[in-house]
Amino acid sequence: MPGSSFGNLFRITTFGESHGKAIGVIIDGCPPNYNIDSKKLQEEMDRRRPGASKVTTQRKEEDKIEILSGIFENKTLGTPISILIHNRDNRPDDYDEIKNKFRPSHADYTYFKKYGFFDYRGGGRSSARETASRVAAGAIAKQILKTKDIEIIGYTKQIYDIFARIKDPSKITLKDVEKNIVRCPDPDAAKDMEELILNTKEEGDSLGGIVECVIKNVPTGLGEPVFDKLEAELAKSMLSIPAVKGFEIGSGFSAVYKKGSEHNDIFIKDNEQIKTTSNNSGGVQGGISNGMDIIFRVAFKPTATINKEQKTVNTKGEETSIHPKGRHDPCVVPRAVPIVEAMSALVIIDNILMQETKKIS
Amino acid sequence: MPGSSFGNLFRITTFGESHGKAIGVIIDGCPPNYNIDSKKLQEEMDRRRPGASKVTTQRKEEDKIEILSGIFENKTLGTPISILIHNRDNRPDDYDEIKNKFRPSHADYTYFKKYGFFDYRGGGRSSARETASRVAAGAIAKQILKTKDIEIIGYTKQIYDIFARIKDPSKITLKDVEKNIVRCPDPDAAKDMEELILNTKEEGDSLGGIVECVIKNVPTGLGEPVFDKLEAELAKSMLSIPAVKGFEIGSGFSAVYKKGSEHNDIFIKDNEQIKTTSNNSGGVQGGISNGMDIIFRVAFKPTATINKEQKTVNTKGEETSIHPKGRHDPCVVPRAVPIVEAMSALVIIDNILMQETKKIS
Amino acid sequence: MPGSSFGNLFRITTFGESHGKAIGVIIDGCPPNYNIDSKKLQEEMDRRRPGASKVTTQRKEEDKIEILSGIFENKTLGTPISILIHNRDNRPDDYDEIKNKFRPSHADYTYFKKYGFFDYRGGGRSSARETASRVAAGAIAKQILKTKDIEIIGYTKQIYDIFARIKDPSKITLKDVEKNIVRCPDPDAAKDMEELILNTKEEGDSLGGIVECVIKNVPTGLGEPVFDKLEAELAKSMLSIPAVKGFEIGSGFSAVYKKGSEHNDIFIKDNEQIKTTSNNSGGVQGGISNGMDIIFRVAFKPTATINKEQKTVNTKGEETSIHPKGRHDPCVVPRAVPIVEAMSALVIIDNILMQETKKIS
Amino acid sequence: MPGSSFGNLFRITTFGESHGKAIGVIIDGCPPNYNIDSKKLQEEMDRRRPGASKVTTQRKEEDKIEILSGIFENKTLGTPISILIHNRDNRPDDYDEIKNKFRPSHADYTYFKKYGFFDYRGGGRSSARETASRVAAGAIAKQILKTKDIEIIGYTKQIYDIFARIKDPSKITLKDVEKNIVRCPDPDAAKDMEELILNTKEEGDSLGGIVECVIKNVPTGLGEPVFDKLEAELAKSMLSIPAVKGFEIGSGFSAVYKKGSEHNDIFIKDNEQIKTTSNNSGGVQGGISNGMDIIFRVAFKPTATINKEQKTVNTKGEETSIHPKGRHDPCVVPRAVPIVEAMSALVIIDNILMQETKKIS
Repeated sequence: MPGSSFGNLFRITTFGESHGKAIGVIIDGCPPNYNIDSKKLQEEMDRRRPGASKVTTQRKEEDKIEILSGIFENKTLGTPISILIHNRDNRPDDYDEIKNKFRPSHADYTYFKKYGFFDYRGGGRSSARETASRVAAGAIAKQILKTKDIEIIGYTKQIYDIFARIKDPSKITLKDVEKNIVRCPDPDAAKDMEELILNTKEEGDSLGGIVECVIKNVPTGLGEPVFDKLEAELAKSMLSIPAVKGFEIGSGFSAVYKKGSEHNDIFIKDNEQIKTTSNNSGGVQGGISNGMDIIFRVAFKPTATINKEQKTVNTKGEETSIHPKGRHDPCVVPRAVPIVEAMSALVIIDNILMQETKKIS
Repeated sequence: MPGSSFGNLFRITTFGESHGKAIGVIIDGCPPNYNIDSKKLQEEMDRRRPGASKVTTQRKEEDKIEILSGIFENKTLGTPISILIHNRDNRPDDYDEIKNKFRPSHADYTYFKKYGFFDYRGGGRSSARETASRVAAGAIAKQILKTKDIEIIGYTKQIYDIFARIKDPSKITLKDVEKNIVRCPDPDAAKDMEELILNTKEEGDSLGGIVECVIKNVPTGLGEPVFDKLEAELAKSMLSIPAVKGFEIGSGFSAVYKKGSEHNDIFIKDNEQIKTTSNNSGGVQGGISNGMDIIFRVAFKPTATINKEQKTVNTKGEETSIHPKGRHDPCVVPRAVPIVEAMSALVIIDNILMQETKKIS
Repeated sequence: MPGSSFGNLFRITTFGESHGKAIGVIIDGCPPNYNIDSKKLQEEMDRRRPGASKVTTQRKEEDKIEILSGIFENKTLGTPISILIHNRDNRPDDYDEIKNKFRPSHADYTYFKKYGFFDYRGGGRSSARETASRVAAGAIAKQILKTKDIEIIGYTKQIYDIFARIKDPSKITLKDVEKNIVRCPDPDAAKDMEELILNTKEEGDSLGGIVECVIKNVPTGLGEPVFDKLEAELAKSMLSIPAVKGFEIGSGFSAVYKKGSEHNDIFIKDNEQIKTTSNNSGGVQGGISNGMDIIFRVAFKPTATINKEQKTVNTKGEETSIHPKGRHDPCVVPRAVPIVEAMSALVIIDNILMQETKKIS
Repeated sequence: MPGSSFGNLFRITTFGESHGKAIGVIIDGCPPNYNIDSKKLQEEMDRRRPGASKVTTQRKEEDKIEILSGIFENKTLGTPISILIHNRDNRPDDYDEIKNKFRPSHADYTYFKKYGFFDYRGGGRSSARETASRVAAGAIAKQILKTKDIEIIGYTKQIYDIFARIKDPSKITLKDVEKNIVRCPDPDAAKDMEELILNTKEEGDSLGGIVECVIKNVPTGLGEPVFDKLEAELAKSMLSIPAVKGFEIGSGFSAVYKKGSEHNDIFIKDNEQIKTTSNNSGGVQGGISNGMDIIFRVAFKPTATINKEQKTVNTKGEETSIHPKGRHDPCVVPRAVPIVEAMSALVIIDNILMQETKKIS
């Protein structure tokens, strides 16, 4: 409950400040005897890693993971898996200018009020660096889900006012997504997005956008009624990602513009399987997966750190101004894609384990 | 973890099926020595109660609450508060037509797959009737929050394509909201909404909409970093309400259309207090309240039960059709307002208790 | 965490004060589709019920259970099971004498310090009456465990200085235990115990004793390593019962008097099964069940309420004396037997559900 | 819930196998702004460290702790504290003899049944090496408790049949305990114990014993009623320590030999404070601390690893024999003292934080 853990049965706990020695994650409850391919783990880390393309921050982090326990001879032991990611590219001097000043729309002020002091080394625990730990844990979850044919595909759906045209979200593959550095499966939109991001970076400004995520081959019956509905867990997991301002599933906010007779998903029989003709439910009904693809969207605000002077207040309560010179992400959306996927994987695997408790074998 | 509990320190557990003897809620962790006005509890129940106006279902439920424990001589004891709400207006014969048929966009099919049987009495646990228990628990939380001047005001922001014009959400009062049966503080929009709902009911169809909610006088520092961010808890609580398809806080999905320099909330000093000139953050930064009003929106889909024939599949997997004749809500939004407020109250009080643990007195 | 819940996956929450309207329990996470025989539930309640024999308190409680939800047509639904037990035999006037005085070795003083007030109606939440709710929940767990051949047999092992001679704990049956009102399977000891209890009651004094409990046919592999070891959960569950001062498993405290070479349980092969020749481990090794009978003992102190004048202090901090005239249990041990069994059943079923999560089916 | 976490608000998660790269612990929920003296942390580690005296195993571990996060400039940040302890003295060849054989009264067989494979490197997660992580976490808790004058003193009360004579447990100091290598404050008994341990080691055999622990200056009001009683949490924490077979608080099992009139602790007024003339309650009444010293005892079985040939069964289910030649502890009790203290500190601090939630400041 103090906030650094997520999940109940496949339970992760992350730790580490952005400017400390290391960050990392403990996974407790991972079932035993699953093969883990550590090369693929690292590949997943590299998708989130900063400095990997020209649309991301130039802060360089290798993000090499070190597994300390829980996996032996490439197999999960059933014991806690602990993963360490050392911090390397610390430049505390970059932070001199911002020392004791509350960066607008960052967590500096709220942490100061919550904990009673100011960690002048930069975001510390509130830094998006923490999400590297989530991607590591999610990558393990993904490999286990893969053995059940469950696949999670996230992609950039929108940057500022540029939309991707996606005909059939169910058909998007990881390869489609990884074709370009903005992780948008619509190549035309991708080109425009990339250009816009670079121009905005030039201006010293930043952009937000929307990630859409599709979870395929989800077994029917996942999700716990009432408070722990599958969409509630997904919503929580997404709103826990830094910079997220909204979540919607299936028809989402556009459901408002439909009448019940248009919005209802009609059940049909398709090859001995029960399916629905539309998927406004987004794969979840009454909080429980119905076997259709789960599809949802997550809105990210523009990065709070910009290369412009802004007015603010300091820890003494005096008005002042701030102009962070450090390296920053002009748009977090492309790097957010693997984070959205990781959190999805954690929600799904936790609910799969929970569903096992419904009957005593 | 089996899903019927919410909160950690002010922890509620709801129980009861819509067609059983009773529903209810246990609140564990309520601090001792708070005055509880049971007349006000009942008033809050009446706001959610079905059959109270012509825009809601005509199913009649008195929703009289009975307090069995935890409150003595109008004071909280610190022991579990248990509240019972008896079910009265059960008409199982109404459900004959739907027996063994999966109602479209309801939880019938998913519960059938999750639990291995079909509760032919209607929604059972997935019924929105369960939310009466939440309103009861939330009403207690609200009374305690009131002693700290924290107030929660929800209202109908949109029904179908009719928007309320709200100049300053912070100024809306409960009285403004309760002036009309759609709970919309814009009287012109309210009139149009009411008319549209009644017409749609006539057609046998249903509508969705958006509830906006403002939480005032929230102390700075609430919310637990990383996974239990305040907005993550709010998102989870809202997506756990039946028929909800989306959640957004502050600028929400519209954040996408702003650049960082426009979106950032600038800190200023206002009468010895630190405030922000805009509130795109929605009162939460880095997962922690910053003292500004918390403001968020929740999207509700149109009611799944409609008075029209629809195709579907039955428990044997055969295609069939269904035409529920029962009473239904043409639009859940007006009755959803107190539910949104109740869940907000539960999130806030839980986080207030959590914040107490940050220092040892 | 606020203390009224037990278990994680088969999670119970009890509520109610001894002198309020009712007490009860919610069970969340009970698997669906299990038959529940409500007559047998009531029989289990009757074993714990006060006033049932001359060795227990004469406070009369019918302890009739009312099931409000979660069970339909004698089957578990998978939804929360809620059980109500109305309080009937309240005589608040009995409590006049003790009003505002801290009864020695009761919870009056500590509750007063914890919650800041004094519930003059008697023990309230700290009363052993609360354990009726546990027995109800345990009785449901027992019926489900029975389908897996798991049986739990508790009995009185010792009262004051009278020991039961038990040759083979594994062979004791419920019938052996229920043969006499002290629930001791050694008939000679039982007779002495009964006599001693009645004499002590005559003196206005009270006695303690030891309950031994055997859990048969436990599957190998139950218990979670490190902190949630099976014996740790059992210990917690037992020490949560009012008046319990100690817990030991297998050899227990007497292990101290053996050397490793004598204490180690040697593995052998017995009819294609792996067993141990002795059972000093008490059926648990490294926190995990090894398939042998689980056997443990629980020490109960003499009842704190006695019919004698004692010195004490009142809520104003003044020294005074107290002489409770109310009805009391001269020895709680016979009635504690079903409580010990109930808590055991709850621990075992929770761990069975947990073990299901070790592999994804 | 998967077992590697302890506590709710001061929540620790341990990780690491005895023969992996490292073990460690994450502490989530540690309040901010407390000074931590890392030299004292290491001293506490050294008390538990193997190889430190002739009565412990000769396995050499430096047990140097490395703090990766959560503490900055010697102050707690309020963020997760992560501590790493590297494993150094691994000699996998020592384990050749035991490969695929179930060591009697170890966790080999139960882990094999639970997880479906055999970690031939030795105990792995079930090894007592894991307790080093607990001592590290407990040492931080102790330093915080010290600021509230709360002190925890454990000591060896009994080894085999040698008892320490302790006149007044409340007067024992850390210095008294650390005067000898068996950690027994009675110097005469200590001498005998040391001699007995060395002789038993010579024989290749092992011994058990009893640790007694006193917690001083505990605030009144700690502990959550019903299931999370203070003694229940202590019992769970103690039974989670490897080799523990029993727990008793206050009068413990000897309570059985007293009548109520002898056992009740009489309240008196002492210098404006309410105290009891005896302390059979062990400082806890109704699950809540009453301000008297908390006093309890923990029984440890003789070490399972002995230097003698024993019959056993291997992973194929064949009968065989085993004679581990490795280094082992002839008696774990002296090294168990700091572990008992650490678990006590974790229970107390968690309950102090919980008590803060009883009133909203």
